[in-house]
Amino acid sequence: MKVFLLTIGDELLIGQTVNTNAAWVGEQLSLLGAEVVGSTTVGDEARAIRQALEHGFAEADLVVTTGGLGPTHDDITRQVVADVVGVPLEVDAALMGRIEDYYEGSGRAVPDAVRSLAEVPRGFEVLANPAGTAPGLWHRDEASGRTLVVLPGVPQEMKGLMHEHVLPRLQRRDDLQTTTHRTILTTGVTESSLQERIQDVVQRLGEEVWLAYLPSTSGVRLRITARGETRAAAEEKLDATEQALRERIDRYIFGTGKETLEGVVARLFTERGLTVAAAESCTGGYLMHRLTYEGGASAFVRGGVVAYCNTVKEELLGVDVAMLADDGAVSEAVARQMAEGVRGRLDADVGVSTTGIAGPTGGTPDKPVGLVWIGYADALGSHAFSFRFTHDRQLNKELASTAALETLRRRLLDPEATGAPWPSRAQPAGAS
Amino acid sequence: MKVFLLTIGDELLIGQTVNTNAAWVGEQLSLLGAEVVGSTTVGDEARAIRQALEHGFAEADLVVTTGGLGPTHDDITRQVVADVVGVPLEVDAALMGRIEDYYEGSGRAVPDAVRSLAEVPRGFEVLANPAGTAPGLWHRDEASGRTLVVLPGVPQEMKGLMHEHVLPRLQRRDDLQTTTHRTILTTGVTESSLQERIQDVVQRLGEEVWLAYLPSTSGVRLRITARGETRAAAEEKLDATEQALRERIDRYIFGTGKETLEGVVARLFTERGLTVAAAESCTGGYLMHRLTYEGGASAFVRGGVVAYCNTVKEELLGVDVAMLADDGAVSEAVARQMAEGVRGRLDADVGVSTTGIAGPTGGTPDKPVGLVWIGYADALGSHAFSFRFTHDRQLNKELASTAALETLRRRLLDPEATGAPWPSRAQPAGAS
Repeated sequence: MKVFLLTIGDELLIGQTVNTNAAWVGEQLSLLGAEVVGSTTVGDEARAIRQALEHGFAEADLVVTTGGLGPTHDDITRQVVADVVGVPLEVDAALMGRIEDYYEGSGRAVPDAVRSLAEVPRGFEVLANPAGTAPGLWHRDEASGRTLVVLPGVPQEMKGLMHEHVLPRLQRRDDLQTTTHRTILTTGVTESSLQERIQDVVQRLGEEVWLAYLPSTSGVRLRITARGETRAAAEEKLDATEQALRERIDRYIFGTGKETLEGVVARLFTERGLTVAAAESCTGGYLMHRLTYEGGASAFVRGGVVAYCNTVKEELLGVDVAMLADDGAVSEAVARQMAEGVRGRLDADVGVSTTGIAGPTGGTPDKPVGLVWIGYADALGSHAFSFRFTHDRQLNKELASTAALETLRRRLLDPEATGAPWPSRAQPAGAS
Repeated sequence: MKVFLLTIGDELLIGQTVNTNAAWVGEQLSLLGAEVVGSTTVGDEARAIRQALEHGFAEADLVVTTGGLGPTHDDITRQVVADVVGVPLEVDAALMGRIEDYYEGSGRAVPDAVRSLAEVPRGFEVLANPAGTAPGLWHRDEASGRTLVVLPGVPQEMKGLMHEHVLPRLQRRDDLQTTTHRTILTTGVTESSLQERIQDVVQRLGEEVWLAYLPSTSGVRLRITARGETRAAAEEKLDATEQALRERIDRYIFGTGKETLEGVVARLFTERGLTVAAAESCTGGYLMHRLTYEGGASAFVRGGVVAYCNTVKEELLGVDVAMLADDGAVSEAVARQMAEGVRGRLDADVGVSTTGIAGPTGGTPDKPVGLVWIGYADALGSHAFSFRFTHDRQLNKELASTAALETLRRRLLDPEATGAPWPSRAQPAGAS
């Protein structure tokens, strides 16, 4: 089953509202085994809606629209849909009865605009809205076999109608593909370096398996898509591909699916019954924010110190005054002392630190913007690694905290490891 | 100027990634005075991309694409764009030079896949990417006057290219409407309460002025849109409307346009030559992250302590052990002592603190999830205020840090003020 999504509303075009409806409907239908072939957004304008509907039916067996079903003058979806199918709008008596009951209950007359909510294109089925007044509409053209589903734009109402009516009906169709997806999450390796390492796997993927690279600031996600005669057959292909990828790039893989690096680190600390404390300079609290992102953080997070000036580094973390003067705050020695200091002062099993030049100013020829040292300390001793990130302050905070989290993850998996989590000049995020 | 947006990537169709790029580009171009007439998403598939480009140019003078510009096999935008315009791909020597320099610096050979990043459709201009390697592309067809802008899909890179190249160039066009926008930023007041306070202004807006309420987690933004014969005439209407709004709700307005609450607080501290230190419990580093968000933070931020366990509150902040036992960590007394303690230990002019139940677990009937105390200390003494936020952990961190920042802003403007920045049970974000 091929699906085309049409989301309607000026607010989506001008970016006042982020189009979460398209993402949600796309995900639900993909999980069902449908193939989403396109997604278009148009404003509240009849010509554009009509054109998009026609394009959608040229591409797909099912078109799902959201938006433009309310009672106000800019809600024109109902009328346009009727025109495209070539039927008139008619008042649905049952629907009008429910609307009148609702208003009678509150002692008010039904406003004229609201009466339009009961108008339905002839031959369309009404899907009762569990969360609002505007119903969903369902129309199947027997000649062509095409289905049109018309839903309101309010996310809660749209989701209610999808769950109660649309998904159960579609699930019974026999033209669903058994397509499944799995996402492998990596960090500390660029997109191109990944590609080199796994190119033999990619070359032998076969016709029914696809691999996509999705770079982000926390690393490159690899999405495997597989199709099979049955779900089990498709899953088997996913398993085989994941296995082949892990044989080549396992050290960069921190999780799968909806996992996050901070979530994985939290799980490892909790499982091992270890605690952590962070001393931050350039990340300015962002590393602690990520360590405390998920609930249950108090089980393994002792706390942290953000040492934005040298006196705080000296007094709260015990960094040596002479060392600060000689090596500077952005140095291997200070990164190590910060990690050791916060571990000791906060009585944690593991200390981690960041010190660097986040930018946009403060760089020197020796210590340019983007230079960051990550320190790590535990009972076995301390280490520090340097990175060269970017010229962008926010991105540097993001990348430095990712490097610190990845350092923690690798040490938790292998306490003997002393190398940097990745080469200094490589970005953890892929280059687009 | 009519604009059509084309966002490319399977991950958008299947809902793995919410299409924030379309919203962001749509908003930026609308604010510039362009009319966004449509927005389409297609997968990484040549036929669909080609078809959408052709449709876009049938509808608009400008087509902006995002996605599919990376170095891997599923990145086909460059090739499809060249095909549609009818030109070959050619290696751009300058671009290749930059790529070779980058790899030379790290002592590695340029992978073949990365070399494809230097291939540019003949006649296209290269827009340097400030945050990554994949450049943007710009092509204007002199015969039709149509412009095609091709951008990478990584939001950070796309935004950098928009800000540095695309928006400044488009701003010089003469087919922009004389529609102007201004956004007034409020916090500490709900959407419905705002609406009550300004209803007389709204009723007298006139035909060429519109007001939109845009609630977010940091407060409600009010966007005024005005149209006039000239830009000056439209600006005059904005000025008059802003003035009328300020007469009614000035105390809730912390800024306009692209200002942020953290940016305004940073400016006030810097202007007054004062320093700040933060003691965080429930916000877990997020308040410090916001205080250090903008460059130049070292001028006023001394540092902070994240005290996730009671011993850190005692040892690093000097909170009284008996008080922790009697009142509990989430209490007025502890919030005040945390603010006083961090102010003293870090030698700052102002101390601010957060302590609360972020959730999702840890609540009690007395101290439910969402209860947060914000403490404030300066040379005049200390205060603390309680809030009842939500059941959502991330939202609670966001709202508590906003409450702390707004407390700082109000004290910086009026050092004698001792009241809470807003009533305990009101959300800073609109309830919408």
